[in-house]
Amino acid sequence: MTQPPSPPGSPYEAHTLPYGVCQRGAGEPTVCVRIDDSVLDLAAAAAALGHPHAGVFAQASLNPLMALGPTAWREIRRWVVSLVDGDRAEVVERCSVDLADVTMLLPVEVGDYVDFYASEWHAANVGKIFRPDSPALPPNWKHLPIGYHGRSGTVVVSGTDIVRPQGQRRPGSDGVPPFGPSTKLDFECEVGFIVGQASELGQPVPVSAAREHIFGVVLLNDWSARDIQAWEYVPLGPFLGKSFATSISAWVVPLEALAAAETALPGQDPEPLPYLSGSNGDLFGLDLHLQVEINGHLVAVPEFRDMYWSPAQMLAHMTVNGASLRVGDLFASGTVSGKDPQTLGSLLETTWNGDRPIELVDGSTRGFLEDGDVVTLRGWAAGHNESRVTLGEVSGRILDHR
Amino acid sequence: MTQPPSPPGSPYEAHTLPYGVCQRGAGEPTVCVRIDDSVLDLAAAAAALGHPHAGVFAQASLNPLMALGPTAWREIRRWVVSLVDGDRAEVVERCSVDLADVTMLLPVEVGDYVDFYASEWHAANVGKIFRPDSPALPPNWKHLPIGYHGRSGTVVVSGTDIVRPQGQRRPGSDGVPPFGPSTKLDFECEVGFIVGQASELGQPVPVSAAREHIFGVVLLNDWSARDIQAWEYVPLGPFLGKSFATSISAWVVPLEALAAAETALPGQDPEPLPYLSGSNGDLFGLDLHLQVEINGHLVAVPEFRDMYWSPAQMLAHMTVNGASLRVGDLFASGTVSGKDPQTLGSLLETTWNGDRPIELVDGSTRGFLEDGDVVTLRGWAAGHNESRVTLGEVSGRILDHR
Repeated sequence: MTQPPSPPGSPYEAHTLPYGVCQRGAGEPTVCVRIDDSVLDLAAAAAALGHPHAGVFAQASLNPLMALGPTAWREIRRWVVSLVDGDRAEVVERCSVDLADVTMLLPVEVGDYVDFYASEWHAANVGKIFRPDSPALPPNWKHLPIGYHGRSGTVVVSGTDIVRPQGQRRPGSDGVPPFGPSTKLDFECEVGFIVGQASELGQPVPVSAAREHIFGVVLLNDWSARDIQAWEYVPLGPFLGKSFATSISAWVVPLEALAAAETALPGQDPEPLPYLSGSNGDLFGLDLHLQVEINGHLVAVPEFRDMYWSPAQMLAHMTVNGASLRVGDLFASGTVSGKDPQTLGSLLETTWNGDRPIELVDGSTRGFLEDGDVVTLRGWAAGHNESRVTLGEVSGRILDHR
Repeated sequence: MTQPPSPPGSPYEAHTLPYGVCQRGAGEPTVCVRIDDSVLDLAAAAAALGHPHAGVFAQASLNPLMALGPTAWREIRRWVVSLVDGDRAEVVERCSVDLADVTMLLPVEVGDYVDFYASEWHAANVGKIFRPDSPALPPNWKHLPIGYHGRSGTVVVSGTDIVRPQGQRRPGSDGVPPFGPSTKLDFECEVGFIVGQASELGQPVPVSAAREHIFGVVLLNDWSARDIQAWEYVPLGPFLGKSFATSISAWVVPLEALAAAETALPGQDPEPLPYLSGSNGDLFGLDLHLQVEINGHLVAVPEFRDMYWSPAQMLAHMTVNGASLRVGDLFASGTVSGKDPQTLGSLLETTWNGDRPIELVDGSTRGFLEDGDVVTLRGWAAGHNESRVTLGEVSGRILDHR
């Protein structure tokens, strides 16, 4: 299995400048950006240089910065670029520390978390596995981006250990649901979008406004206990099969840094309703190259350009009923899967619900995840001038149920 | 239709002492309690008397007070009782204002909002209406309290107008989903529980600990657009049909005030798994008498004692997979419906999806809600010594889609 070749260079060059929240020792958390393997403390830099919004950097989350709104997002990014591009090299050096010397915290205080189901390949595969007697796609699937609310209180930052959840499973012939640690623990490789601008209750957000509301992009692992989920999810949807943990990357790549990765959607038929339509520039797909590793072994290379529904359509759908957005809301794409077996973003699909285990480099096999397994999602996109924009990685280790 | 007779007296006598957050004019919001039709400003009283936790009352939500933990909840309630029972009549008078002179705000900063489906009668009715070709109850229903996450960012306080949501509906023969304002807007009469004590990720909360985690009780209207919901909800559950608004009462009745209303559950068969079992004292039902009014006309008198699953079981189930609780989490019972047609907690059930409209006092009929309708939920329980504990009412007016 091979990843599309990426442009050379360091993974976090100065055209990416992802935001995060870091802490040195027992110090106060601050907002920072990453350059190669060093971290620039923006609170320190802003204080040293008298930045007018210095207060938003001396914070434990990106929410106050995001709440300044999209014009300020662009101004702040220009300011950071100007620092890094050399006009304040002395300040940058003084305010930077090695990545290894800081702890990265959850970058966002998450309001609501919504998870979509926007890959046609994923939805069809899940349909075939969970509902073999029904059509692979439900009748609504091509008319609206299906989504549901997840648990925002269990969104955790990359590096957080994941305790194997326990729960009920579908009963056998005795009618009693077996109970215990999940035997079908899975990852889902997803892309998450951080809402940086709020909206009013009762006011839908049109597709054309998406860039003004989406602050940035994270990689997201929607950990899933397939056995718990299969028993519980009819009729009100996934609940405990998902709510034990959702991991996001520590680094939030500004949407602005991904401008060169915008791409056409693969095509929608039937044509969606007007509120989900717009010029292709409004709808914008993203050509993000993803990879999934288990214990360092590459097991999938999903391509985000394969997604049927776009982030702008997800945002428009989520608010068309008048639901408001808050600064810090998070919405995710759903599992990124394509047609090619290499591009399947969950073990459920790759192993067909465990029936076709995969073999890792060490010779061991996996139907689902085992205790001790480390799952890491990575991603990158082409930037301007043949540069590479690296997405924040998200990683987590499975701990046995205690 | 008649409500069970309630003990005489004022609706908010000094044994209830519900908490809320009020604002006078453009002043700072403060935590208060209600006594009859007056509001005692606890921030002012605590400052006047030098209360050790005075800071938690000068706040825009109950969250800091709740975060002190259950021992402090009991101490603070004893302190308030002592004030009101007369030993500080002068301070109480000086720190009280008429209810009419304050604005009541959303009392809680809501973390995650989970809605359950705990009435057997409601679940069976919905099953018959939405899935006429399947058994009324899904096979998992009697093994676990089914629940799903709702949108916490659109939880609003009683008195907030509700804009009729728009959305897609199931297509007819042309295959194109009709789009527009919901034509099947409904209420759901529910009881909500405010989590006041957090729990650790990975640590289930047993049924026996429910009283240490549940701070108080609100009435809750889970507004529902049945046409939007029916088209969207397979396979990932309700989303836009619910997420436009959820109303809660401004007043949070401490669980401690409802001790005399604890009652046995109606009975569970089959016996639930051990994590959902306990002595009946651990599981505790609540004998709450509810009523639903449309434009002042009584349309339903649901009885909370009819609920199959108890709040303690909901809490234990919600966390059995290791999901953590935050201070301010809200979980609700689902529609409270019983066997008697008078006790059905939604128009979906009362009018059987609009097929059997009800007539109001003014001679008009309702299949579902019309623009301008005001829906009000009220409730009470028996207190100690033949007193009455009144639950906070929750009310909202439907505005036309603009």
